[in-house]
Amino acid sequence: MSQDIVLAFSGGLDTSFCVPYLKERGYAVHTVFADTGGVDAEERAFIEARAAELGVASHVTVDGGPAIWAGFVTPFVRAGEGYQGQYPLLVSDRYLIVEAALKRADELGTRFVAHGCTGMGNDQVRFDLAVKALGDYTIVAPIREIQKEHTHTRAYEQAYLEERGFGVRAKQKAYTINENLLGVTMSGGEIDRWEAPGEGARGWCAPRAEWPAAPLRVRIGFVEGEAVSLDGEAVPGHQLLARLNRLFAPYGVGRGLYTGDTTIGLKGRIIFEAPGLISLLAAHRALEEAVLSKAQNRFKPAVARQWVELVYEGFYHDPLKADLEAFLASSQRCVNGEVVLETHGGGVQAVAVASPHILNAKGATYAQSADWGVEEAEGFIKLFGMSSTLWAEVNRHAGR
Amino acid sequence: MSQDIVLAFSGGLDTSFCVPYLKERGYAVHTVFADTGGVDAEERAFIEARAAELGVASHVTVDGGPAIWAGFVTPFVRAGEGYQGQYPLLVSDRYLIVEAALKRADELGTRFVAHGCTGMGNDQVRFDLAVKALGDYTIVAPIREIQKEHTHTRAYEQAYLEERGFGVRAKQKAYTINENLLGVTMSGGEIDRWEAPGEGARGWCAPRAEWPAAPLRVRIGFVEGEAVSLDGEAVPGHQLLARLNRLFAPYGVGRGLYTGDTTIGLKGRIIFEAPGLISLLAAHRALEEAVLSKAQNRFKPAVARQWVELVYEGFYHDPLKADLEAFLASSQRCVNGEVVLETHGGGVQAVAVASPHILNAKGATYAQSADWGVEEAEGFIKLFGMSSTLWAEVNRHAGR
Amino acid sequence: MSQDIVLAFSGGLDTSFCVPYLKERGYAVHTVFADTGGVDAEERAFIEARAAELGVASHVTVDGGPAIWAGFVTPFVRAGEGYQGQYPLLVSDRYLIVEAALKRADELGTRFVAHGCTGMGNDQVRFDLAVKALGDYTIVAPIREIQKEHTHTRAYEQAYLEERGFGVRAKQKAYTINENLLGVTMSGGEIDRWEAPGEGARGWCAPRAEWPAAPLRVRIGFVEGEAVSLDGEAVPGHQLLARLNRLFAPYGVGRGLYTGDTTIGLKGRIIFEAPGLISLLAAHRALEEAVLSKAQNRFKPAVARQWVELVYEGFYHDPLKADLEAFLASSQRCVNGEVVLETHGGGVQAVAVASPHILNAKGATYAQSADWGVEEAEGFIKLFGMSSTLWAEVNRHAGR
Amino acid sequence: MSQDIVLAFSGGLDTSFCVPYLKERGYAVHTVFADTGGVDAEERAFIEARAAELGVASHVTVDGGPAIWAGFVTPFVRAGEGYQGQYPLLVSDRYLIVEAALKRADELGTRFVAHGCTGMGNDQVRFDLAVKALGDYTIVAPIREIQKEHTHTRAYEQAYLEERGFGVRAKQKAYTINENLLGVTMSGGEIDRWEAPGEGARGWCAPRAEWPAAPLRVRIGFVEGEAVSLDGEAVPGHQLLARLNRLFAPYGVGRGLYTGDTTIGLKGRIIFEAPGLISLLAAHRALEEAVLSKAQNRFKPAVARQWVELVYEGFYHDPLKADLEAFLASSQRCVNGEVVLETHGGGVQAVAVASPHILNAKGATYAQSADWGVEEAEGFIKLFGMSSTLWAEVNRHAGR
Repeated sequence: MSQDIVLAFSGGLDTSFCVPYLKERGYAVHTVFADTGGVDAEERAFIEARAAELGVASHVTVDGGPAIWAGFVTPFVRAGEGYQGQYPLLVSDRYLIVEAALKRADELGTRFVAHGCTGMGNDQVRFDLAVKALGDYTIVAPIREIQKEHTHTRAYEQAYLEERGFGVRAKQKAYTINENLLGVTMSGGEIDRWEAPGEGARGWCAPRAEWPAAPLRVRIGFVEGEAVSLDGEAVPGHQLLARLNRLFAPYGVGRGLYTGDTTIGLKGRIIFEAPGLISLLAAHRALEEAVLSKAQNRFKPAVARQWVELVYEGFYHDPLKADLEAFLASSQRCVNGEVVLETHGGGVQAVAVASPHILNAKGATYAQSADWGVEEAEGFIKLFGMSSTLWAEVNRHAGR
Repeated sequence: MSQDIVLAFSGGLDTSFCVPYLKERGYAVHTVFADTGGVDAEERAFIEARAAELGVASHVTVDGGPAIWAGFVTPFVRAGEGYQGQYPLLVSDRYLIVEAALKRADELGTRFVAHGCTGMGNDQVRFDLAVKALGDYTIVAPIREIQKEHTHTRAYEQAYLEERGFGVRAKQKAYTINENLLGVTMSGGEIDRWEAPGEGARGWCAPRAEWPAAPLRVRIGFVEGEAVSLDGEAVPGHQLLARLNRLFAPYGVGRGLYTGDTTIGLKGRIIFEAPGLISLLAAHRALEEAVLSKAQNRFKPAVARQWVELVYEGFYHDPLKADLEAFLASSQRCVNGEVVLETHGGGVQAVAVASPHILNAKGATYAQSADWGVEEAEGFIKLFGMSSTLWAEVNRHAGR
Repeated sequence: MSQDIVLAFSGGLDTSFCVPYLKERGYAVHTVFADTGGVDAEERAFIEARAAELGVASHVTVDGGPAIWAGFVTPFVRAGEGYQGQYPLLVSDRYLIVEAALKRADELGTRFVAHGCTGMGNDQVRFDLAVKALGDYTIVAPIREIQKEHTHTRAYEQAYLEERGFGVRAKQKAYTINENLLGVTMSGGEIDRWEAPGEGARGWCAPRAEWPAAPLRVRIGFVEGEAVSLDGEAVPGHQLLARLNRLFAPYGVGRGLYTGDTTIGLKGRIIFEAPGLISLLAAHRALEEAVLSKAQNRFKPAVARQWVELVYEGFYHDPLKADLEAFLASSQRCVNGEVVLETHGGGVQAVAVASPHILNAKGATYAQSADWGVEEAEGFIKLFGMSSTLWAEVNRHAGR
Repeated sequence: MSQDIVLAFSGGLDTSFCVPYLKERGYAVHTVFADTGGVDAEERAFIEARAAELGVASHVTVDGGPAIWAGFVTPFVRAGEGYQGQYPLLVSDRYLIVEAALKRADELGTRFVAHGCTGMGNDQVRFDLAVKALGDYTIVAPIREIQKEHTHTRAYEQAYLEERGFGVRAKQKAYTINENLLGVTMSGGEIDRWEAPGEGARGWCAPRAEWPAAPLRVRIGFVEGEAVSLDGEAVPGHQLLARLNRLFAPYGVGRGLYTGDTTIGLKGRIIFEAPGLISLLAAHRALEEAVLSKAQNRFKPAVARQWVELVYEGFYHDPLKADLEAFLASSQRCVNGEVVLETHGGGVQAVAVASPHILNAKGATYAQSADWGVEEAEGFIKLFGMSSTLWAEVNRHAGR
């Protein structure tokens, strides 16, 4: 009797190939598509039909929106910065896909899971380490397996499918494009040659010529650092993010081009477009700037940076991540209020902040607020600079 | 006989007041205007005339451009980020002004120096600590002195000058505006009430309606992390920065609004416009992303953040700053090459990079470059994730 | 009618002086002695009698042991290091003393509190900032007040008391000694001259000649990073610490001499003796080394260092401290088990560890545990070192 | 004709095995023994004789003392802490051994180098990454090769040698012991079972019963953070370290037991004995505490920790290491002076410091040195604590 295996399935070439490949190795293949917002209803239907065509034992579509909001977006926005200060970790849906796949495996009572990652990139690290952390599962990675013997794996996969009578969607484009609720990631093409991206590198963000003339203002409400409302209306997080994507993309907000140090140490040059996520970061930062203490604002980036590196590199389940999130949750106690975002195109700015927790000096403005005397200011400067001043004095005389 | 004193002079209300105030306390006042690029020839002439009108013993204008480039801009760009991740430290010209004033004092053979800082803000900390670090000078701060007895110091200063027959340039604006080669800083007005800035908060950056339709591309060359050329032409640094300001301001590049934790612990909400500096940061970062090792890219932000905090808080001469700059200088050994910046308005992006030091895997692109096998990748994942995986295994069984 | 004021009282010269000083300024003085373990029953009785002799309106003794264990010792041991890597923050009882004093003030319905700190040291910072954080109290600091007019304050205080018929315990010693449950701190004497300490600098720790010949072994049990048992017997924390002090002091364990950068920027050279606290740190670290993931062990010191600096500098109530403690609490989920400490004199070592959470590779020893192949190890090395190796390759050819 | 290969040779089982193994695969084997101080003249002679017996093409002994002092000890002491706060990186001689081997390869005109590391530990990472960084060499690792097919490699190696008529020094001990100028490292035995070490775990450090009754005092002179003299006598660094080892070992100084997170993520439990290195760290730290500014003392540990992790994990040639060393070198400008170390057994303490750079407040002692007034101290406390106090005030009223 065949062995059940759960395959994280997207309907693309790699995971389509995995179905017959696994079947021919004696598995009953159960596909799971975790919909994290990158597809519309039509594409979702295509994916289901594709799974059926390939002869899977079962197929389920999981709504990944709430999970990705709670599991990734909220701590990410609380942390407040991208990988290497830039990249908003748009492929973090992988971790939620793993959870959906393992949940399905548990339902089916099997320990076998499969994914379509290659042996070259970062995603395999995320996928494998997440699975290992969550239980004693056996990972099957067909693309990695065929890479042991075949150099041009995509051609091999295509021929393999065609031989078996399965069509292959022709999409040989300059850029490899990845899309989900979080945004669009593009790699390949001109940027791989360190040149400026060409027109093939277009995702959600409108080009300058299409930006609306009128500015956009949006008001986002936060409770304990989590975005909960849009222009005063309570909206579930994943829907709020989707709406921000639709609002800011026409203004070209959230597009970036950067070179990152990948987990395996190569340079990875990518374009990302994340209108909603980048807008959320801007709003959240403005609120934090107003309500956190100076000590909090100074230390928090070290926590953020570590959290981001763990998530980027596959350590989504390392206990340190939970420790950092405990810090982040505590730091958000007073991150409550509303922020007005504004764009005129090409960027977004938080222009107004309202919160009962703003650290105003007794409600007064900066210049008027001084309730200290000049002697006190002089004393502060003297003692605050003491060590530095002493160093200069001592070493002037010590002949340095 | 009167005692010589050197006064850092800008021609504004505060430092104009200082001249008769100091004279009436028995000082011969020698004014120094360190021109760091915030004024044109007309304004410079006005400042000289103003000093003469006020009856100074001598006045000198110092060209602060080269000093501010070497002393501040170069290490700042090498460091790579603003204060609290945002503010590009636009008031750092204070440190160079101090140096110019003390040089003048040494020439005159006096140990007395004066500045027009109030007892409320951060600038006094920068000014005082810089002076203390550089020698046994006596600091006289007239505005701080009158604040001991007068609440509305600006009105007092104005009356004081008028009583003595000196005119006062009427400029009671919503925003306090500070301008130099580095950029424009605006505080006060609506933003002090945490509201969106009004039209009074306009500096160099053009509003959307005026942005040119055609994009701008500029090529910047770096040697050891220092910008040295523009579109292939070698340009002295301070002139390069001035040209970048003129090139990017029409596109609204480099404008930001943020709330910072000031040295004395209050929240300071300001608008800054720094088209050139923000562009330089973007270009430099893109080059670093390509040529630094992963370990360098990961650690460097901790150094940057510390450097920025020292400069923000007055510790320009603390020995730690020199130590951090030694790190930064070493890290820039291979930061050589050219970067193409592009703007369509509202933001700037580094779109292309050229350098002999780019860490390409044997010149190949990312996807094609793998010279490792699949077993090696699997081994990497296993050992790289070992500690994390072991933790999960052990604690699944230990009942967590 | 006189105004009630609560005075944190120790029975020493400074706080004794405060009583008549405050009474003569119209206050009804209520003394609070927070016993944090530095005194025996006899001394406690003396303090009560002293308060009565000085004519206080009321006196209460508060048992500070449980509060100092929960509020300071537990998070300190979880954090795991001293100030500047050395000093185990032995004066942190100040924060618990403030809480006891304010509790008493609330009972009495007054907002006035007094302390005997001078204007020269760190303790005033701790005391004042803690009070300010906890409510709108008015702080009266008599010693600081008389320092405005008197240089030799101790002589002045002594004369002041004697004039009013109060005796003064003569103890003019080379070292200023401070003692509580946490340990003994000594300053002054030879070490102020950067020389080796003389015989006057003796606290609890026995000199070499008195160390027992037989080694001492003690077993400490931890639950979530908190010490809960001694040699298998459950013991309340503050008693456990007291017992460790008595056990390890005869072996000279926990004595240190260091120079610290004080809050006000001067160098402070002190000797500390903290047999119990240093032993707890050693035991706790050994357990953490065994059960935390590599990522946790690497990041945690940054949190520890920040926590320690906040507590040292008076920021006991800054919200960042709570955030850091949330991190620490999370990190201790698996810090359960027992550790055997051993001393032969002069130092202490954790020699054995038992815990269900030890990150053994499947219970095997290090050398035997490898469940990976040699190709995997080679792959790991190649990819782990990729960025660094590429840098070397590229730059060998780029002529660096 | 046979291909020349350079083998890093120690005369032990693993590297002895490598000689016939490599010869039988067609190499002419050239052995290099880099003497970093772990052996005496007799042992050195034995190693030479052993190489000859095994039939090497050539053998050279390199004096590694000066190289290990300059390349490792000096930056390590400047950095100031061990791996994970504990382990003084005693196996860092590997990097100098690699350099000696590659120098020999270059002399011989070959690109082949061999080492005796297994595929299980950290040393292979250090060895391989160092070689890769230094040029296009081919690494041959015989022990790793035989591990692909043989589980009990040591038995296999022994049999292999005996079959060919080569004797094997029988030393099957409970602990694997590694010894060089830096100290002794012991692993295996009882500590692998998380138990207390038995008598087999003895290196240089005398047990309590043998400690001299009289204390030891030693004076170490530093120039720019490098130890240059002992009790006033100038001594080359590697000899100074050897003398400190001999001086402090009889007092049991420098012995530690800790569990580290190894490069491959396992827990490694080891005993180390490094009397000289631990003494140097103590002396150097005491001097730094006295002469560095507060800002330097606070930031430097982050640099130290990163440097130590790089060296531990094989990144000896990553450019970040050079950057960190540039920081460290700059930070040592004023680390000049003499420190008196003292031991009574079981630990070492820096008891006196002399330097022209000590940051005394005008040469006065701490308590007497205050040249500020009480208002100034109060002003300092108010402004220094401003952000924290404001947070408490605002959030008391905001209902937190």
